[in-house]
Amino acid sequence: MERTGVWLVGAYGNVATTAIVGARAIAHDVANTTGMVTARPPCTRLDLPDLRDMVFGGHDVRDTSLLETARRLSAGGVPTADVVETVADDLAEIDENVRVGTAVNCGRAVTDLADETLDAPDVGDVVGQIRDDYRSFADEHDLDRVVVVNVASTEPGVADPDRYDTLDAFERAVEANDRDLPASSLYAYAALVEGHPYVNFTPSTGAALGGLRELAERENLPNVGRDAKTGETLLKSTLAPMFAARNLRVRSWEGHNILGNDDGLVLENDANKAGKLASKGDVLEGILPDIEHNRVRIDYAPPLGDWKTAWDDIRFDGFLDTRMKLQFTWEGSDSALAAPLVLDLVRLVAHADEYDEGGLQPQLASFFKAPLGVDDHDFAHQFDLLERYVDRHAGEGDDGRVRR
Amino acid sequence: MERTGVWLVGAYGNVATTAIVGARAIAHDVANTTGMVTARPPCTRLDLPDLRDMVFGGHDVRDTSLLETARRLSAGGVPTADVVETVADDLAEIDENVRVGTAVNCGRAVTDLADETLDAPDVGDVVGQIRDDYRSFADEHDLDRVVVVNVASTEPGVADPDRYDTLDAFERAVEANDRDLPASSLYAYAALVEGHPYVNFTPSTGAALGGLRELAERENLPNVGRDAKTGETLLKSTLAPMFAARNLRVRSWEGHNILGNDDGLVLENDANKAGKLASKGDVLEGILPDIEHNRVRIDYAPPLGDWKTAWDDIRFDGFLDTRMKLQFTWEGSDSALAAPLVLDLVRLVAHADEYDEGGLQPQLASFFKAPLGVDDHDFAHQFDLLERYVDRHAGEGDDGRVRR
Amino acid sequence: MERTGVWLVGAYGNVATTAIVGARAIAHDVANTTGMVTARPPCTRLDLPDLRDMVFGGHDVRDTSLLETARRLSAGGVPTADVVETVADDLAEIDENVRVGTAVNCGRAVTDLADETLDAPDVGDVVGQIRDDYRSFADEHDLDRVVVVNVASTEPGVADPDRYDTLDAFERAVEANDRDLPASSLYAYAALVEGHPYVNFTPSTGAALGGLRELAERENLPNVGRDAKTGETLLKSTLAPMFAARNLRVRSWEGHNILGNDDGLVLENDANKAGKLASKGDVLEGILPDIEHNRVRIDYAPPLGDWKTAWDDIRFDGFLDTRMKLQFTWEGSDSALAAPLVLDLVRLVAHADEYDEGGLQPQLASFFKAPLGVDDHDFAHQFDLLERYVDRHAGEGDDGRVRR
Amino acid sequence: MERTGVWLVGAYGNVATTAIVGARAIAHDVANTTGMVTARPPCTRLDLPDLRDMVFGGHDVRDTSLLETARRLSAGGVPTADVVETVADDLAEIDENVRVGTAVNCGRAVTDLADETLDAPDVGDVVGQIRDDYRSFADEHDLDRVVVVNVASTEPGVADPDRYDTLDAFERAVEANDRDLPASSLYAYAALVEGHPYVNFTPSTGAALGGLRELAERENLPNVGRDAKTGETLLKSTLAPMFAARNLRVRSWEGHNILGNDDGLVLENDANKAGKLASKGDVLEGILPDIEHNRVRIDYAPPLGDWKTAWDDIRFDGFLDTRMKLQFTWEGSDSALAAPLVLDLVRLVAHADEYDEGGLQPQLASFFKAPLGVDDHDFAHQFDLLERYVDRHAGEGDDGRVRR
Repeated sequence: MERTGVWLVGAYGNVATTAIVGARAIAHDVANTTGMVTARPPCTRLDLPDLRDMVFGGHDVRDTSLLETARRLSAGGVPTADVVETVADDLAEIDENVRVGTAVNCGRAVTDLADETLDAPDVGDVVGQIRDDYRSFADEHDLDRVVVVNVASTEPGVADPDRYDTLDAFERAVEANDRDLPASSLYAYAALVEGHPYVNFTPSTGAALGGLRELAERENLPNVGRDAKTGETLLKSTLAPMFAARNLRVRSWEGHNILGNDDGLVLENDANKAGKLASKGDVLEGILPDIEHNRVRIDYAPPLGDWKTAWDDIRFDGFLDTRMKLQFTWEGSDSALAAPLVLDLVRLVAHADEYDEGGLQPQLASFFKAPLGVDDHDFAHQFDLLERYVDRHAGEGDDGRVRR
Repeated sequence: MERTGVWLVGAYGNVATTAIVGARAIAHDVANTTGMVTARPPCTRLDLPDLRDMVFGGHDVRDTSLLETARRLSAGGVPTADVVETVADDLAEIDENVRVGTAVNCGRAVTDLADETLDAPDVGDVVGQIRDDYRSFADEHDLDRVVVVNVASTEPGVADPDRYDTLDAFERAVEANDRDLPASSLYAYAALVEGHPYVNFTPSTGAALGGLRELAERENLPNVGRDAKTGETLLKSTLAPMFAARNLRVRSWEGHNILGNDDGLVLENDANKAGKLASKGDVLEGILPDIEHNRVRIDYAPPLGDWKTAWDDIRFDGFLDTRMKLQFTWEGSDSALAAPLVLDLVRLVAHADEYDEGGLQPQLASFFKAPLGVDDHDFAHQFDLLERYVDRHAGEGDDGRVRR
Repeated sequence: MERTGVWLVGAYGNVATTAIVGARAIAHDVANTTGMVTARPPCTRLDLPDLRDMVFGGHDVRDTSLLETARRLSAGGVPTADVVETVADDLAEIDENVRVGTAVNCGRAVTDLADETLDAPDVGDVVGQIRDDYRSFADEHDLDRVVVVNVASTEPGVADPDRYDTLDAFERAVEANDRDLPASSLYAYAALVEGHPYVNFTPSTGAALGGLRELAERENLPNVGRDAKTGETLLKSTLAPMFAARNLRVRSWEGHNILGNDDGLVLENDANKAGKLASKGDVLEGILPDIEHNRVRIDYAPPLGDWKTAWDDIRFDGFLDTRMKLQFTWEGSDSALAAPLVLDLVRLVAHADEYDEGGLQPQLASFFKAPLGVDDHDFAHQFDLLERYVDRHAGEGDDGRVRR
Repeated sequence: MERTGVWLVGAYGNVATTAIVGARAIAHDVANTTGMVTARPPCTRLDLPDLRDMVFGGHDVRDTSLLETARRLSAGGVPTADVVETVADDLAEIDENVRVGTAVNCGRAVTDLADETLDAPDVGDVVGQIRDDYRSFADEHDLDRVVVVNVASTEPGVADPDRYDTLDAFERAVEANDRDLPASSLYAYAALVEGHPYVNFTPSTGAALGGLRELAERENLPNVGRDAKTGETLLKSTLAPMFAARNLRVRSWEGHNILGNDDGLVLENDANKAGKLASKGDVLEGILPDIEHNRVRIDYAPPLGDWKTAWDDIRFDGFLDTRMKLQFTWEGSDSALAAPLVLDLVRLVAHADEYDEGGLQPQLASFFKAPLGVDDHDFAHQFDLLERYVDRHAGEGDDGRVRR
C-alpha cells in the first residue's frame, strides 16, 4: 500500500509519543508488536500499510519535544531508556513536523497546560491554518494519504450539539465565527475538507456532529470514533455480556479509576470529565438495561504517573435472589494500552480508505467506548464485525484487485 | 412438551437440592428465574418443558433428606428459610424418589461421606439395580422422558480411559466385572441403555468414554458434559478471548479458589481434585497458547460454607513489553450458581431429545468447562452456538411441526 | 454500678437501632458480645454497667419506629428476623422514650429525610425543649446517669468555629438566637448543662467547640468524640504506623467507599460529606507526614443497603526506590460495626463519670477518627491508652473503694 | 563504632546482592535509605555502624558473581541499571570475598541450584573450613567484628531437633559426623565459636537449636532469628491485633502467595516449604486463638521474577453474628523488602554486641516471623521492645561511655 501519513492532534502527549516511539522501535527491531490488534489474525490477512513506512506529524499546544515526553515517560518504565535512545534521532526529525495547535473551547484545564496556541479573531482562520498545516505535511513528505487522529486531552462537551446537525449548519457556524465550536471539531472539519480520514481517539466531540458525519459520507471518507476502549471499559464490554447471557441480574456496578498523568489532571476538571464519564458509563446501560446503580469515578493521583488502576465492584443477584459479586483491579500503563490501538486504527482506516469504505466504520466498533454507528457494546459482537470485514477483504492487495 | 423426569445422581447434595428447591419455589411463585439461561432470550423462543411440570428423583449415598440439606444451606443464607418452608412438603414427597446410590471408585473422600451404598459382587448387578431404579421412577410417575444428571461429588479420574473406547470394550468390561469402572460411568451407561439422555454436570468421567459416546450416537440420545462452568472458569473463558483479541500476551494466570462445602472437602483429596483442576486449567491453553504459567488451586475453608471465592491474578505484557495485570475476586454461592444451570440443561436436553438431536450437543458448550465435542473455549463463541441452535428451532412446537 | 440511661440522638437510625437491638438480644441471650471491646480483656477488669440494665431513649426527626428500622435492616441480613422478633416488645417499649428531634443546620440532605422536627423561633427554646426531654427521661426511669450519644446523620461543618471558643461566647450566641449553631451542638450543650456526659459518634460538630469543652471541664463531665472509627479509617490507623515503622515511604493512599444506607444518601450532599472526609483523611497526615496524595471518596450505591465496602490503594516506595503497593477491600455491615462501639462507649463513659474522670477522655481515642485531645492516630498507641486506663482502675468497684 | 564485617551465607542470592548493592549505592550517594528501619527514629538515636564502612563477604554454592545477579535482578526493575553500573567495581571487589559454601542437608531443591559445594567426609572438617573462611575474611580486612547472616534458600526442617538441645550434644554430633545436621546450623556454630554474632534471616534451623542457644549465651554473643518478616506476615502481625482489640472474631484467614524467583523455586519442594509455612502460619494462632481456618499457600510463578504478590482473605464475625471480610493484595519486590532489613539487623546486632547485650535479642522481634525468645507476634508490641531498647541505649557512643 502507499505511503501513509499520520497526523496526531496532541502530538506531544503520552499516547501520541508512545505510538510514535513504538512504531519507530518496531522499525528498528527493538520492539515487538504485542498489543497491536493488526499484528495477529484475523487482521494479518489484510493488505495493511507497513508500520515502518508511516510518516508522523501533528499539532500540539505545548512547547516541548517528543524526546522530552519520551524521557519523562521512560522514568515511569515505559518505554525503556534503551528504546528511547534508539529512536531519539527519529523523534527529533518528527518534531520538525509538529505545528502549534489550537485550544479553542478546550476548557481551562487544557489551556493551563498550553505554552502557545493557534488562535485568530475568526474561527474560519483557525480552520484555514489547520488546513495549511495538513497540506504542507502531505506535500513535503509526498504522502498518498494522511490519517488525522485526535489524541489530545478531553474537551468539555458541546452544549446542544443538534445545532450543528447538518453540514450547512456547521459551515454557517464557522463563517459566523461561532466560538462554541470546539477545537476537536475544527481539526476534524479541516481534515475532511482536505480529503483525509478522521479518527477520534478521545471523548471530545470531533466529527461526531451531524454536519461532519454528512461531510464524511459525502466525501466517502472514513469517520471513526470515539473514545478508545483501552482498559476498564474494555473489561465492562467483555464482562457485562457474560452476566446478561447467564441471566444474572447486575444491580450495582461502581468503577473507580486512579491515574497520574496529564489526562488525569485535565479530568480533575468537572467539565472535561463529564464527556469521559458519559462514554464510560453508557456501555453498561445497553447490555444490562435493568442495572440500578452505575457510576464511574476518575481521580487524579499524581504518584501513579502514566499508570492507571481501575477498581470495579459489581453486585449481582443470582438464583433465589442470592447476592453475589465480582470485583476486579486492572492496572496498566495508560499509554502502552492506547498507543498500539492508534497504530491499528491508522492501518485499518487507511485500508478502508484504500478500498473505498467511507463514512462510519462499524468494523472498528471494538476499538471504542462510544462507536459511531454501532449501538451494540458487546465486545465479542463488535470483534465479530471486524472478523467479517476481514473475511470480506482478505486476499485483496496481493492479487491484483483494483483499488480506489 | 411432555412430562419430564429429572434424575439427579447426588440428589441430597447442595446443587441438586438447590435446583429442586428453586424449581419448586418458582412453581409456588416465591422465587423468580434469575440465573436461568433458558428464562431469557434467545432460549425463550424455544418450546421447552415447563419447570412446574418437572418430576424429580435421584440417587445418593447419604442417609439424609432434601429438607435437611435445604435447611443446612439456608443457614448460609441461600435459600432463605421462608422459601425452604414453602417447598418443604414438596421436598418430602421427592425424598420418596431417592434411591441408595453407588460409590464404586469414587475414592476415599466420597466413601467417607457415605452412609450406605449400592454395591454388589458384580458390576453388572450394580448397573442392573440402577436401571431398575430409573425404570421404576419413569413407570411410577408415568414420565415420557427422564433426563439423568450427574451432580455427585467429583471422582478420581480413570487411568487409561482408552481401554473403554468402544461400546463393545465397555460392555465386555462390565461383564468381566472390571472394578476400575467409575460410578459415574455406570450411571451413564444405565441411563443410555434405558433410553435416557445423560448430562454430566461434574468433572467425573461419566459418558465421556468412547464406548458410551458410541452408545449415545447409536441410540440418538443427547450425551452432554462435562463440568459445569459456573464461576471462575466462566470468567476465564470470557476474559481470555479479550486478551487474545487485543494481542495482549498473558504470561501468568494463577487462580486460587476457596470454598467450604462438601465439594471442597472432597477436593481436599488430591486424586479427586486432579480432574477438576484439569478441566479448569485447560480452558486457557486453547485460547492463550503462549501462556507461560497457568495454575489453579482449590482450598477447603470450612467457615465459608457453600460460598466460594475465586481470586485470579493475571499478568500480561502489552505494547513495548509493558507489564500489566488484572486481578479479580469472584464471590458467589456455589449452589446458587450451579442449580439454575441444572434446570437449564434439563430443559435444553429434553428439547434436543424431543427434536431428535441426539449425540453430542455443541450448542450446550457454553455450560461446560470441558464441553464434549467442542474445542473452542471462548464463551462468546460458545454462546453463539446456542443462538444458532435457537434460530434453527425457534417457532417449533406451537406451530404443529412434527416432533420425534 | 447504677442504672444507666442511654439517650441516642438519631434513635431511629441504623446505628442506634442496631445498638438497641443488640443490647436487648444479649439481654435475652439470643446474641453474644462479639464486636464489643468491653466484652474482652483488658476492659473486663473494669467495673462497667451491665448491658442488661441500660435504659434507652432518644431523639429523631423521622416518624417511624425501632421495629420498622430493625425490620428494614433485617432484610439486608443483620440483625436476623429471629433476633428482631425476640426483642420486638422491648423495641415498642423504647419507642415510648423517643422524642421529636431538631434538624437546625443539618443541611438539606437531612431535612429531606425528616418527617417532623423540633424548632422554635428562638434557639434557646430549642435547647430548652431538649433539656426537658432529657429530664423527663431521667425522671421517668429513675436514672442515676444518662449518657447522651450523637448517632445522627452527619451535618455540614460550622464556618469559623472559633467564634464559639468560650462558654461565654457560646451562651451569648444561644441568647442572641444565632441560627448558625448546629443541632449537634445544641444537643451537646443541653446534655452538659443538665449534667450528662456527651459522646459524639459522628463527624458533626457536637461538643468539639471550645465553649462546650470549657463547660465539660468545668462540670467535670466526660466529653468524648468524634467520628467513630469503625472500618476503613480503623485500618488506616493500623496500617499506616506499619509503613512508618518500616520506613516505607507511602506516596499515594486513595480510598473509595461505597455504601447504600441513609448515611450514604446524606453524604451524597457535598456539604455533609466535607466533615466526614476531613476526619477520614487527617488520620494519615499525622502518621505519614511525607504522603503526597491522600484522598477519600464516598459514593452512595443503593443496592448495597447497609453494607459498606472500602477499597484502598496504597503506593509506597521501598529500598532502592522500588515501587510497591498494598490494596485492600473491607466489607462489613456499617451498623454492625458501629453499634457495639456505641455500647462500649456508653459503658466506658459511664465508668469515667462514675470515677470522676471528667473532660476529654484520651483513653477512648482508639474509638475515634478525630479523638478530642489526642493527636496520635496510631491505633496501637491509642489502644495502649485504654490499657493504661484499665490498669489504673482495675479492681475498683468490687473492693469498696469510694466513688463519686 | 568500629569497622564491621558482614558475612552473608547465600552471598549470590537476590537478598544478599540487593543488600550489598544498596549499601554501596548509598555509599556512592545514588540511593537513599528508604526501607531501612535504622535510618529513622527511634533508631537514629543509637550509635550504629556506618553503612559506608561495612565490608562484605560470604559463602555461596553457585558459580556466579554479584554483578551477574544484580544485572539479572535489574531486568525486573530493581535495582536500576544505573545503580548497578555505579557499584559494579565494588561488586567485583566483594566477589573476592566470596567462598564456596556447603549444602549439607539443604535438600534436593537447593542442590539442584548448586554449581560447586563445600563438603568433606567429616562434618567437623566442613565446620573447620567455614571457620577458616570467617577467619581469613576478618584478618584480611582487619575487622573488629563480623556479623554472620544467613540469607540462603530455605532448608528442610530438622527432624527431632531436641537431640541437639545442649551444646554438649551438638558438639558430640559434630564429632560423630552426624549427617543430619543442616548447613545453616554448621554455619551458625562456626560463627559462634569464632566469636561472631549470628543472624538467621530465613526459616532454616540455624542457631535455633538448644545447643547453639547455649553457646551464644555462654559467649555473650547476639543470636538472632528467625525468618525475616517482610511482607504478608508483617501485615498479619499488624492486622490480627486490630481484630483482637475490637473483639471481632476471625474465623478464616487464607493467604496465597505467588513469586517467581529462586526462593519460589526452592519452595516448590514440599520439604523446603514446610518450615516457611509453619512460621508464616503460627503468627495468627497466638493473636487469634479462636481462629478456625488458617492456611498459607506459596506458589512459584516464574513470570513474576523477583516480585511477590500475597492475597489474603480474612473472614470475621462481628456484632450479631454479622459475617464480614477483609481482603488484601500486597505486591512488592521480595529482595527490596528484605535487603534493607539485612542491613538494619547487621547494624543493630553490631550495636548489641558492642554494648554487651549477648544471647537472644527480644528488641529485634519485630523483624522476624518466629522471633527467638519472644512469643508475642503483635507487631506494635514488638516495635515497642525496640523503642525501649533505644531509650535504654540512646546517647551512648558519643558521650564517652565505656563500651565492651
